Order: sequence, then C-alpha cells, then structure tokens
Amino acid sequence: MVNLKKQIIDIAKRTKAACFSLLDIDTKIKNKVLREMAESLLKNRDFILKENHKDIDFAKNKNFPGALIDRLTLSDKRIKEMAASLIAISMLPDPIGKIISKTRRPNGLIINKVRVPIGVIVVIYESRPNVTSDCIGLCFKSSNAVILRGGSEAINSNRAIYKILREVLIKNKINPDCINLVPFVERNVINVLLKLDNYIDLVMPRGGESLIRLVTEKSKIPVIKHYKGVCHIFVDNMANLEMALKIIINAKVQRPGVCNAVEKVLVHRDIAKNFLPKLIKELKSFNVEVRGCPITKRIVKDINNAREADWYEEYLDLILAIKVVNSLEDAITHINYYGSRHSDSIITEKKSNALRFLKLVDSACVYQNASTRFTDGFQFGMGGEIGISTDKIHARGPMALEELTTYKYEILGRGQIRE
Amino acid sequence: MVNLKKQIIDIAKRTKAACFSLLDIDTKIKNKVLREMAESLLKNRDFILKENHKDIDFAKNKNFPGALIDRLTLSDKRIKEMAASLIAISMLPDPIGKIISKTRRPNGLIINKVRVPIGVIVVIYESRPNVTSDCIGLCFKSSNAVILRGGSEAINSNRAIYKILREVLIKNKINPDCINLVPFVERNVINVLLKLDNYIDLVMPRGGESLIRLVTEKSKIPVIKHYKGVCHIFVDNMANLEMALKIIINAKVQRPGVCNAVEKVLVHRDIAKNFLPKLIKELKSFNVEVRGCPITKRIVKDINNAREADWYEEYLDLILAIKVVNSLEDAITHINYYGSRHSDSIITEKKSNALRFLKLVDSACVYQNASTRFTDGFQFGMGGEIGISTDKIHARGPMALEELTTYKYEILGRGQIRE
Repeated sequence: MVNLKKQIIDIAKRTKAACFSLLDIDTKIKNKVLREMAESLLKNRDFILKENHKDIDFAKNKNFPGALIDRLTLSDKRIKEMAASLIAISMLPDPIGKIISKTRRPNGLIINKVRVPIGVIVVIYESRPNVTSDCIGLCFKSSNAVILRGGSEAINSNRAIYKILREVLIKNKINPDCINLVPFVERNVINVLLKLDNYIDLVMPRGGESLIRLVTEKSKIPVIKHYKGVCHIFVDNMANLEMALKIIINAKVQRPGVCNAVEKVLVHRDIAKNFLPKLIKELKSFNVEVRGCPITKRIVKDINNAREADWYEEYLDLILAIKVVNSLEDAITHINYYGSRHSDSIITEKKSNALRFLKLVDSACVYQNASTRFTDGFQFGMGGEIGISTDKIHARGPMALEELTTYKYEILGRGQIRE
Repeated sequence: MVNLKKQIIDIAKRTKAACFSLLDIDTKIKNKVLREMAESLLKNRDFILKENHKDIDFAKNKNFPGALIDRLTLSDKRIKEMAASLIAISMLPDPIGKIISKTRRPNGLIINKVRVPIGVIVVIYESRPNVTSDCIGLCFKSSNAVILRGGSEAINSNRAIYKILREVLIKNKINPDCINLVPFVERNVINVLLKLDNYIDLVMPRGGESLIRLVTEKSKIPVIKHYKGVCHIFVDNMANLEMALKIIINAKVQRPGVCNAVEKVLVHRDIAKNFLPKLIKELKSFNVEVRGCPITKRIVKDINNAREADWYEEYLDLILAIKVVNSLEDAITHINYYGSRHSDSIITEKKSNALRFLKLVDSACVYQNASTRFTDGFQFGMGGEIGISTDKIHARGPMALEELTTYKYEILGRGQIRE
C-alpha cells in the first residue's frame, strides 16, 4: 500500500517534469509523431488484438454483461478507426501559442494573452480501449502531459496501446513521461491521484454518475464533469409539427444509449390534443416506452405514468417521458429545474419564441429546430472530443483541443515600474 | 444548527431562482442601477460609518491587530472610492451576449458560441467591507447572482452596505435575491454552502492560504483559487543592470504586503559579483532584510542565510531572498519548481532569452523588463478585479467581468436530424 502510493506519486512527479518539455516541441514535430503513432497502431495490430483477447477472456469468465464486453472488444476495424482518429488530430490546427488578445497600456506595457497548455491532465475512464489512444492524441497535440487511469477490465489492451504509442515518443527523442498509464488495477489509485494537486492540473473523469460524484468529492484538483444528459425537446404551439415528430424520433431512437439522446418531451397545451396521439403512435412503432404526465394520459390513455423521479432520470434506453406545459415560460422553468444543462431544443417557427428559449435555457447547447443528437465534437467541427462538459467553469459542451488549453499573459516592458 | 442549515439552503435556493431573472435585464438598466447604487452609498454615508464603528469598537475591545482594524475601517474617502468603483463598472462594456464565434456546418446548422453569466457565485472574504460593494458591482454587471460571506469582524459594515444596495434593486423592480449576504457569523456556514452544488456554480475564496485550502478540500462546487504570490525577478547576464535595480526596488518596496510584490530575486552568475553588492546596498537603504544563497553570501557577507523553506515562502513584508543561478534554464526550472504561478519577470536586453523565459515559465503573468507589481485588474485595463487566479482552469491572473462569464452554444436549425 505504502509502496503503491509512492509509485503513483513518482509517476505524477515524472509527468509534471515532462510536461514542461512539451512546450519546446513545435507543431510540425507533433503532427509527425501523431502520424507515426497511427502507423504504429496499424503495424502492431496482432499484438493489440492478442492482448485484447486476454481482457475479453477474463470478462467472459467473470460473466461480465454483454454490453461491457462489446465496449471492450477491439477488431481490425476499431484499430483502423483509432489510427484514423490520430491522423485527424494531426491535421487539426494547433491551438498552442495563439495570441488571444493584445493590449497596449498607456504606460507602454504590451500585454499579450496567449493560449498555453493546461499542464498535466488525469483522465479516468472505463472499458473502451480506444479512449487510450484518443486521449493521448488530443493531449499530445495540445502539448499537455497526460496520466491515464483506464478500467481494470481493459488493462491488457490499454497497456498494449500505451506501449506502442510510448515507443513512438522514444524513437522521436521526446520525453516518454509525457504520457503515462497507471499500471495498477487497485481502486485506491484514484484516491491517491486526486490528492496530488502539486503535480496535476486537471482531472477528467469519464464514466457513470457515481464515479464522477466520487471523484468530485475526493479531489483537491479541479475536475471537469459530465454528470448526465437529461435532454429536452419542447414542442411550441408555433411548431411545424411534422418537423417536431421527425426530430423527436431521431433524437430518441437513432442511438438511445448516448448522453445527447432526448429523454423528455414537453408539449405546449394548445397543440397537445392534435400532436400527442401522432407522436405516441410513432414512438410505439419504434418500441419506445412512453411515460406521460396526467394531461398526456388524459389525451392518450394507453401509456405509463411519469412520476416525479422520471423528470430527473437519464434513461439511456428506449423510454421517453412526456409532459404538457402551459407556456414557453413553463417549459423553460421545467428544463432549468429538472435538466442536466446538457442539450435542449425548441421546435418553433416563431423567431421571438426561439430567441427567448435560446437565451433563458441554462444549458451548454440550446437548439432551435434540430435534434439534440448533434452535441458532439465531430458534429461541431472540432475534429473529435475528449468529453462533454456539463459544468460551467472552464468549458461547456463538447471539449476538444482548444478546451484542453488555458492562457497566460506575456507582458513586454522597457523598464516600467509602478508609481 | 438544523435551522441554520435550512436557512442557508433557503438563501441558496432563492439566489438560484433569482439568477435566471438577471438574464432578462439589459445593459442600460444594469448601468443605471450601478449608478444609483453609487449615489445611494454616498447618500447613506453616515449610516454606513455608524455601523462600521460598531465593528471597529468590537475589534478594539477584542484587541485585534492594528492591520486588521485598518482594513476594517471605513472613512468618507473609502466610501467615495467604493462609489467611484461602481461608477467605473457601469462604464465598462457588458460582456454578456457577445458572440465569441460563429460556425456554419455543412448540414446548414449555425452554431453560435455566446458569452453568458456563470450563474450563482459565492464569494468568501475577510475584513475589508469595500469588497462587499465591489463584488456586488462586478457580479451584477456580468449578470451573475452572488452570495456574499464576509468576515464576522465586518458583519455590521457589510450588512449596512448590503442593505443600501439591495434597496436600489427593489426600487428598480429587480429581484433582490440576485444579491444575498449570509447574515450568520457561524464558521459552519461555509461548510454548508460548499455542499450546495445544485444551487451554486462557483466559489471564490479570498483570504489567507489556510482558508483557501480548507475551501478547496471541502467544496463539491468548482473553486477558483488564489493561493499566494511567490513572485520572482530573474536578472539575466544580458540585463540592463540599472533597470534591474529600479525594477527590483519598486517590486519589493512600493507595497510589500500585496501578492504581486517580488519575494525572490534570481541573479545570473556572470553578473553576480558586479550587481549583488549594489542591489543589496540599495535594498538595505529601504530597510529590506536580505536572505541569500551560499554564493550570494560569499559575495556580500553581511546578510542572513536563505533556507530551503525561504524559496517557497510569501513574506508579504520587507524581506527578500536572493539566489545566484548558473543559467537562464536554471532560473526557469527554479521558478517552475518553487513559484506559485502568479507573476515572474526577466530583466534582459536579449530578445531570445526573453522569449524563452516568457514561453517556459508556467505562471499567469510573465514579464520582460517590468515590475511584477503590474499584475492587477486596473493596471491590465479591466477596470477592476474580483480576484487574481493562480489556478489554470477557467481563468488565470486578474479576474474581472469577462472572467465572471462562461459560454453556451446556441444552434439554429431547419429540421436537421442525425444520419
């Protein structure tokens, strides 16, 4: 135990020391290394798959759920996607060194606000081994050092990917401690890491809500969180109802297990009688379980009751709760009270209603006349994402290269002193 | 105790509800209210001073230190400064609603990244009553609701200022719960507040390092911290030594009790023999106690030893530690290891040395040829400041209106769904 703690502190210290060396590596080198990392993953496919099989066999022997085994399983196709993602990152613009603003003060001081890396980032994640290479790619491109703490069920796969990518750093004479993978499966590793605010600048937990709450409570280091996606679509009385129907079906059915899928639909009372029977019929044809408020149930009898807890819940499944509201204002109030500040959409043809919704709904992404499923780094044109923030501090919504940076002030003088 | 907790939760809930109403108040109204707040402070000077006297009498009876009583004491002049600060804030541009970026995606979605308030901010501070009106002014202008938790020693002064400013909100038909002052002096108030992450978006502790560490460890809410200012000046071998001397004296002597005063001077070994005797003579003439590394002591005998702990310490006093370093790289390594990521300066005439220092020193503000004393919201042209961050997440260095904001994505569609 003492030894484990010492080893983790040692990893954090080495990563901190290495993070400064990243400031000295220019964009061309970073992109070359990313391309070589992609090649190396492809070249070492057989090794990765062999190690991945160890994890899969272990998971099967332990009777882990099928969904977990699916997330864990790599294939030729998945390894090609990992490599393609590293290539894509190599082609994105480098955020580091960009001058955000330039001010000249009356005393002649020139104040440049410059984009810089955050430093050392810890990513805590669960079973998908591709997260290992995605995080390494995004952190390396943004000149951050990273400490990865993957799920114990994927330890062999993660080690294999990490080993291959680390060797590319060594070959290019880059301090390999810029990327570190915690080689221990003990759960206590996380508790130790979360106290090392001298060496670590940011923690990003990716996983279930309970993991994220645990990390937030224990951490002395800033945490950027993604709690959950309780996404709403509000169908206004000025909506194009055909559009509303298509968007709701897309947002619920196209991929129900993800955080940007819709979980609640609010319907303006003026159109409820006309719209709800069509909507619910369509939802049922896609095997969606509908849970309705009392008014919804009065209009369409054959559905389940929505209870108070339903309005808070992220189903991540083919379930949808529907509520009839009296007004646009009531819809906004409901979303701000029960929502998770992730993604919410209004369907309306009336511009003033849309503007009011966009302004007053307190979520990372607020839509007019579009599916909530677009909240995603690729869809936003960021080239990828390291996560989606439901926090309001530092970054909101999809996070990619720019969100992995901070800034510093570089101030040029000619001997100025303070009067 | 149960009752106290209930009352604090009630304050937080009311502030959260009120924060949404701020989104509906436009810039002209906000500026008018700020001007009326300034007038009302001036009109109610006698009342404020009367209440302030209660705090001063209490502090004197308790034999509180003179420096604390000085920070606590209001005067006609200080009230005028508080009013002037509110007027200054009313004249700054409103950050809210500004479009940070606009993207049109291939599918026709328009994604606007828009500046919005953070929501509910808790400010925990100590004895200066002027912080009460400064924080109210900055938060109100940036459309944030604020919960103030001032020091118990200033409770009567804070209550008086708060009462006057709150009445201006009521007169202007603005929900007065946008600003709340915790009316209890119990220390446990802070513990209760720090758990209310459903209602509070950000905590800003202002005070000693122990208060800030306590808040960081207990908080479930994001915290932006200012630990300390261990500021360095490095005198390069290519420095203009006359300029170096003037800047060091200014940064140490002009106001030694503040966080941007210099605490450590690093001197390149090539110029140490020439420069150190002059520097130390000048420092002594201003009654500065000098603590030197062994090499410094070999050059100038009559000074104290700098111990290992000296390199970490923020003196906030007329004390300076001096170390001779072998190179620019050694200076950078020392600063990144012992510093507090606040403000550090290089004195050099050689551009490439300056650029290397600016790039590699990991601090919020990095200077060439200027005093560290310029790290300040007013000096940076921000019109004021709510604090200085030594964190790297969300904001670094002086924080004013823009740093009290976050962003949201407003996305306009025409029925787009995800393929």
